[in-house]
Amino acid sequence: MEAIGIIHTPYKTKPDCPIQPLYAAGIGSRVEVFEQYAEGLKDIELFSHLYLLYRFDRADAIKLVRTTFLDDTPHGIYASRHPCRPNGIGMSIVRLLRREGNVLVVDGADMLDATPLLDIKPYIPKFDAFPDASEGWTAGKPWRQKPEGRE
Amino acid sequence: MEAIGIIHTPYKTKPDCPIQPLYAAGIGSRVEVFEQYAEGLKDIELFSHLYLLYRFDRADAIKLVRTTFLDDTPHGIYASRHPCRPNGIGMSIVRLLRREGNVLVVDGADMLDATPLLDIKPYIPKFDAFPDASEGWTAGKPWRQKPEGRE
Repeated sequence: MEAIGIIHTPYKTKPDCPIQPLYAAGIGSRVEVFEQYAEGLKDIELFSHLYLLYRFDRADAIKLVRTTFLDDTPHGIYASRHPCRPNGIGMSIVRLLRREGNVLVVDGADMLDATPLLDIKPYIPKFDAFPDASEGWTAGKPWRQKPEGRE
Repeated sequence: MEAIGIIHTPYKTKPDCPIQPLYAAGIGSRVEVFEQYAEGLKDIELFSHLYLLYRFDRADAIKLVRTTFLDDTPHGIYASRHPCRPNGIGMSIVRLLRREGNVLVVDGADMLDATPLLDIKPYIPKFDAFPDASEGWTAGKPWRQKPEGRE
C-alpha cells in the first residue's frame, strides 16, 4: 500500500493530538491528495463528512491487550481504537469544510502532522449512522480531554 | 500488511454480494480471527456494532472516476465506496451477534467469502454516528437492491 496523500494537521507530537476527531472540532486541517489521484475527488464536495484512512506511521509497539486513552482498564486492541495495532490503519471521520483543488480543508482531523493518507470514503448516514449502537466499555466513562500519561 | 483473519460469508461471486451491509441484514457471517490475534478480542462482545477493515482482494482495475452501483453518473472514487480503488481497503459496519472464541458471528457482512481481514474497530456512536451528515450525490437515489450489470 502506498500513500495517496499527506494529512497536514497542527499536531506535531503525540501529546498534542486529540484522542478522537470529536476533540479536534474547530481545528482546520489540510488533506493533500497527490496530483495523480486528484481526479478521484470528483463530487467529493457534495458530502459533509468523510472517512479518512491513514497509516499510524509513528505508533509504538503493538500490544494485543492494553490500557487506552479513555480508561485504565486493559481492553483488547480490537475493542479499542488505540493506534498501536496490527496493520496500523487509522480511521477518522472529519467534516469537509471546502475543497481547494487537490486539497480538502477539514474539521476534526486528530492525527499527527504529515500522516500518510491511504484512502478517503464518503460518510453516508444511511450506511454509517447507528446512533443507538452500544457504547461498550466506553459507556459512562468520563471523556478525558487530554489523558495524563498519554504516549 | 498481513491478514489477521478471514471473513466467511455466503457470497461466493461478486453478483451475489449486496452493495452495502444495509442490504445484508439478517445474514449471519463468521469473522475468523487467527489464533495469534485472538487475545486482542478481549471485551469486544460489549459492543453491538463493529467496523471491519479488509482487503478487496478480487477487485478489478482501478479507475479514479467511474459509475457506481447506486447510479449511472460517474463519480470520483473518493466520493464513492466502490471496491476498485487505490490501496483496495474495504470498510463495512456489521452488527455483532455473538463471539465464539476467535470467531465473531456478525450480521450484515457484505463482502466476498474468504475476504482477508485487516482490522476490527469498535463502533462508538459518540465518535461515529452523524445522522445529519449530507447524503451527497446519493441523496434521493432509489436504493437499488441488486443493480443490473454489477461487476
